[in-house]
Amino acid sequence: MTPSTSRRNMLRGSVATAALAVGPALAGTAHAAPSPGTPHVGILLYDGYSLLDPTGPAEILARLPGASVTMIAEKRGAVRTDTRDVAMVADRCIAEVDRLDVLLVPGAGNRGTLGAMNNQALLDWIRQIHRQSLWTTSVCTGSLILAAAGLLEGKQATTYWASAEYLQSAFGVTYLPQRYVHSGKIITAAGVSAGIDMALYLAYLIAGEDTARAIQLAVEYDPHPPFDSGNAADADTPLRQRALELLAASQA
Amino acid sequence: MTPSTSRRNMLRGSVATAALAVGPALAGTAHAAPSPGTPHVGILLYDGYSLLDPTGPAEILARLPGASVTMIAEKRGAVRTDTRDVAMVADRCIAEVDRLDVLLVPGAGNRGTLGAMNNQALLDWIRQIHRQSLWTTSVCTGSLILAAAGLLEGKQATTYWASAEYLQSAFGVTYLPQRYVHSGKIITAAGVSAGIDMALYLAYLIAGEDTARAIQLAVEYDPHPPFDSGNAADADTPLRQRALELLAASQA
Repeated sequence: MTPSTSRRNMLRGSVATAALAVGPALAGTAHAAPSPGTPHVGILLYDGYSLLDPTGPAEILARLPGASVTMIAEKRGAVRTDTRDVAMVADRCIAEVDRLDVLLVPGAGNRGTLGAMNNQALLDWIRQIHRQSLWTTSVCTGSLILAAAGLLEGKQATTYWASAEYLQSAFGVTYLPQRYVHSGKIITAAGVSAGIDMALYLAYLIAGEDTARAIQLAVEYDPHPPFDSGNAADADTPLRQRALELLAASQA
Repeated sequence: MTPSTSRRNMLRGSVATAALAVGPALAGTAHAAPSPGTPHVGILLYDGYSLLDPTGPAEILARLPGASVTMIAEKRGAVRTDTRDVAMVADRCIAEVDRLDVLLVPGAGNRGTLGAMNNQALLDWIRQIHRQSLWTTSVCTGSLILAAAGLLEGKQATTYWASAEYLQSAFGVTYLPQRYVHSGKIITAAGVSAGIDMALYLAYLIAGEDTARAIQLAVEYDPHPPFDSGNAADADTPLRQRALELLAASQA
């Protein structure tokens, strides 16, 4: 192997040749998967979203065969996160998008979530897209925004752990403390990082188990956090307080 | 509780009052943590990076007390991912940044990784920042870029599973199949999602265990993927082939 061949194949490791040989067969399998063949995923950005909420699922869903992922906002252009340190680009505005296979609504801190819940143009657009979507999904407090749009009434759903009481009391939703909750064509995920687990489940629903398992390997999702403190049900009050303190302090 | 109070506190749940009461004490604890008091984290974006590589760690590190996270690229402006579907904004160009507490270099597909490895301006900048950084870190094939900059010679490191052979053979690095590898002030993470685990470990190094555990709860990182296929060591050849096929097909 020459150095340049080696470089070109550096991401393929020892299976490079075999992978090329079976490419067409694999592609055939992928296209034989359940609906839709080329899923169009749209992620709604709004001022103050939390960065991992859209990007975790985007990383997963972009690997679905034939998929496209589009960041969408009320206006095109840069949309800043809750910390205001980071921005993603919305390549489309809501007026340009009238149909999606998958809609994903990320969560945010208080400011961003309230802003979206009170933005009638966004809520109207969510309702419009939901009418024809195959899947309508949320991460973290994104479920509060779906609820504000009237999509969760009488349903089971999940949300960020610290928002569970509010989701139940304000919207009559039955909160389930799960990583994700599948209710009809709506799938809600718990806080922030739970969007990754939800997206793998959605990949399974869209393209089947083999593809979902392969995507999990593609993003090397074999989580081993150094601590085990991510579940609010196991956290004592000081830990919960400190988590919310850190969030509040980081948010602009 | 009036509806508007309820809305304002919707992210605080039942610990809202207590959290406000202990806020100053918690802040004091945070500021008493190890170095640095206000970590400046810089993440290098380049054409073709994988979206979760910078955003997973950014979500974690942004919650460190006093932290700022800046996306940096050769030129300011939108920088597109491997799929070209999504872009983040680089708010600073490398010429504007001569010092960082934490440098993070994300990974990419073949095109993006090779592009960065062959970009002398980027490599020079990485070396310059590394000279004074407290921590120099990478996710996925970002370790190949650190290696191309000469930072990993004779060291132990990790990388994306399919790049392990190349990292060893091309750069004389000892590959360890771990989620992250800490070698002096360099910490490398395995593929894509491993950046989240690495960032929690780095949060622990910077701010101590209590803060790292609280950040993990803040992003509700209690992973429960629907499958267990994320570890390449446990994957058979067809699964590895399919994972690389899906990656290659999704990358522009």
